[in-house]
Amino acid sequence: MFPKNQIGKAAMLLVLSGEGEEQDRLLKVLDESGFTVALGRVGTMDSQKIVAAVETAAKKNGIISSERYREEHALYHAIMEALLGVGRGVVSFGAQLRTVGLRFSIVRGRPYASPDEGEWIAVAFYGTIGAPVKGWEHEALGIGINHM
Amino acid sequence: MFPKNQIGKAAMLLVLSGEGEEQDRLLKVLDESGFTVALGRVGTMDSQKIVAAVETAAKKNGIISSERYREEHALYHAIMEALLGVGRGVVSFGAQLRTVGLRFSIVRGRPYASPDEGEWIAVAFYGTIGAPVKGWEHEALGIGINHM
Amino acid sequence: MFPKNQIGKAAMLLVLSGEGEEQDRLLKVLDESGFTVALGRVGTMDSQKIVAAVETAAKKNGIISSERYREEHALYHAIMEALLGVGRGVVSFGAQLRTVGLRFSIVRGRPYASPDEGEWIAVAFYGTIGAPVKGWEHEALGIGINHM
Amino acid sequence: MFPKNQIGKAAMLLVLSGEGEEQDRLLKVLDESGFTVALGRVGTMDSQKIVAAVETAAKKNGIISSERYREEHALYHAIMEALLGVGRGVVSFGAQLRTVGLRFSIVRGRPYASPDEGEWIAVAFYGTIGAPVKGWEHEALGIGINHM
Amino acid sequence: MFPKNQIGKAAMLLVLSGEGEEQDRLLKVLDESGFTVALGRVGTMDSQKIVAAVETAAKKNGIISSERYREEHALYHAIMEALLGVGRGVVSFGAQLRTVGLRFSIVRGRPYASPDEGEWIAVAFYGTIGAPVKGWEHEALGIGINHM
Amino acid sequence: MFPKNQIGKAAMLLVLSGEGEEQDRLLKVLDESGFTVALGRVGTMDSQKIVAAVETAAKKNGIISSERYREEHALYHAIMEALLGVGRGVVSFGAQLRTVGLRFSIVRGRPYASPDEGEWIAVAFYGTIGAPVKGWEHEALGIGINHM
Ligand SMILES: [Mg+2]
Ligand SMILES: [Mg+2]
Ligand SMILES: [Mg+2]
Ligand SMILES: [Mg+2]
Ligand SMILES: [Mg+2]
Ligand SMILES: [Mg+2]
Repeated sequence: MFPKNQIGKAAMLLVLSGEGEEQDRLLKVLDESGFTVALGRVGTMDSQKIVAAVETAAKKNGIISSERYREEHALYHAIMEALLGVGRGVVSFGAQLRTVGLRFSIVRGRPYASPDEGEWIAVAFYGTIGAPVKGWEHEALGIGINHM
Repeated sequence: MFPKNQIGKAAMLLVLSGEGEEQDRLLKVLDESGFTVALGRVGTMDSQKIVAAVETAAKKNGIISSERYREEHALYHAIMEALLGVGRGVVSFGAQLRTVGLRFSIVRGRPYASPDEGEWIAVAFYGTIGAPVKGWEHEALGIGINHM
Repeated sequence: MFPKNQIGKAAMLLVLSGEGEEQDRLLKVLDESGFTVALGRVGTMDSQKIVAAVETAAKKNGIISSERYREEHALYHAIMEALLGVGRGVVSFGAQLRTVGLRFSIVRGRPYASPDEGEWIAVAFYGTIGAPVKGWEHEALGIGINHM
Repeated sequence: MFPKNQIGKAAMLLVLSGEGEEQDRLLKVLDESGFTVALGRVGTMDSQKIVAAVETAAKKNGIISSERYREEHALYHAIMEALLGVGRGVVSFGAQLRTVGLRFSIVRGRPYASPDEGEWIAVAFYGTIGAPVKGWEHEALGIGINHM
Repeated sequence: MFPKNQIGKAAMLLVLSGEGEEQDRLLKVLDESGFTVALGRVGTMDSQKIVAAVETAAKKNGIISSERYREEHALYHAIMEALLGVGRGVVSFGAQLRTVGLRFSIVRGRPYASPDEGEWIAVAFYGTIGAPVKGWEHEALGIGINHM
Repeated sequence: MFPKNQIGKAAMLLVLSGEGEEQDRLLKVLDESGFTVALGRVGTMDSQKIVAAVETAAKKNGIISSERYREEHALYHAIMEALLGVGRGVVSFGAQLRTVGLRFSIVRGRPYASPDEGEWIAVAFYGTIGAPVKGWEHEALGIGINHM
């Protein structure tokens, strides 16, 4: 079973591990613990493309319903909080002449022991931010967590 | 050897893994790859205590020199960037009636293949942020990366 | 019946109207439409006291459960968003040598036509912000809206 | 007569009430109390279009002079402060993949009892912010107040 | 005569030059051009003390009236804008474990050629920001400009 | 010799003085004290063009190496901090319908008495920010300082 109250850690480990055995093992544990997961990648100078990429992945993989605004709202604010970590206080990149290359994960489930706490969602980003010159970049990451 | 350009991932994995075998193994790999590391914990509503805790740990463990402002300056901005991830855009907590409980790591070394890129530093936080009521909290994390 | 998708307008009108007939009439309509409401006042230079005042009022009046963190989390972020309106981008006041005198309202219910959209919460502030000199102030307000 | 020191409340009530009897009655009271008013609407993902719409309405309706930068400066900062309420800390929307639909009002006059306090201006926004999908939105509002 | 539209440059040169001949010469030119000036110093970790120091200096030296809120309001926002330069986006210092030592100037007058543009005010800060260790600091500065 | 720990003052005086004798005299002193300097101008609504203009000037004039990311990283954060002064908390301009016209300077050298403190860089901006109408603008400035 996945330890309680670690939905953010799970989301971050998924993007840190990258594709491979470790990620597969983590995906299996999360699945067995009742969490649903979507993974993706996005590279851009345009922050709205990051939002769109995560929302599309969440809907395609059935993490959030395409029929309910409340689920989109929960996801949206989780994305914004995660992007504030990536941009360290800003959520735009092109205006600062920065380009980002990010892996992202979305994890939905019940992280708290009490069933009354219901479902929550975590969004994690990990990748690089830097000048529009290959290799002129350093790592950046962030998570956002919200109740569904 | 630790993979190149992953000083931030290393710092984040150290705080995510917590004390135990996995952390020990990671510490060993980082040591063999020439990185120096300090670890610590801090729980507070007062953001300046977080800054102080990380700076003290960095000096005590010889990660930065106590004699050179430039090293403190590099560390300071890395801490600020990591805290912006924790606070998702703000670096104060008590003014928002939030309390944080954080593990932190500081990693210093040469993450780039080219020796000209010199030394860099990464600071990572992982823990919880929430109301001043036990268990009423969710996870938060952040990293900051700077050239030394 | 209270018009759909106007929970924020309702919350703002409650604090704008102040005590009296107009507020009473609005409270009656909201009650008949299934919304629960709490009202209060707070004057301070210390933003954490504003958070505490709203949370206390919400629990005392049964707007949120004292047993579920997810409800506190929903309310907390609604308060933060409303305070960003009051402070126009900052959520601290004393550090800027400003004092605030605010009426607040909390409204919980189902603002959307579709039952799937479930419950939402709105927090509204209206009052004054200014120098610590009587009358040297202008009005300030804000709302925050969140899904429960 | 309109009560003193409530120019912000007046501006907010104008956008909350929408077109109709209540707005007409309020406009009449403001006019009799010596306040000048302009109203408008704007829907966009592009925050600079909001600024342009309000400035154009203010000039067309003679709220500010087209000949004096100081009046544009006073209005501009009032708009920025009101937008910080709408965006809850940010003044851009498209970069966050959000679209806004806003009514706005501009009110100019003498809100303070003392004639020495001179003229002030209030800008209010009320409307919705949300995903670029019809109905996937919640309310947002803000006011900005400045001396002329 | 002091060149037109350079009230901010004047304020900044006053704090950069420090006490001495150059400052005296600049003060004389400003006085002859109809500008009023106040100078001061403040060292603190507490941003509200900076606001108080500038406001007190402005009133004591007759730069703003102690009887009119509108003048305090104009000065206050100029101070806030100047502090955003000093703090590079934040206006608090102690919460970030930073201490500042600042000279400040306040300049009031008519910077524009057209008499209709009326009076404006500029606030400038220049000094150091750094760790609470002597010499561990670098320079910081900022200006804020507002219409009176 | 240029006084110690005044690299920011030097950078600011260069942009305040404009072309002419005073700037030439200052450039000579800085050159004799071992500082390297680049100067430029940029007018735009687009903040990324400002970043690009400063980075290009820095590389063309040999202030930073085109071969080392760490030097670009140091310069980049200095630019961002200086722009936060210009924008008083934001680093975008067009989204707020503002246009800027700026002179900039970049100064690199050893501002501290101790040789261990090594090289630092300062970026300064001075110019105007305002509506896209000629003359409807006021001054703005900022500096950013970083270790190399
Ligand atoms: Mg939260
Ligand atoms: Mg960086
Ligand atoms: Mg929302
Ligand atoms: Mg104000
Ligand atoms: Mg301005
Ligand atoms: Mg610094």
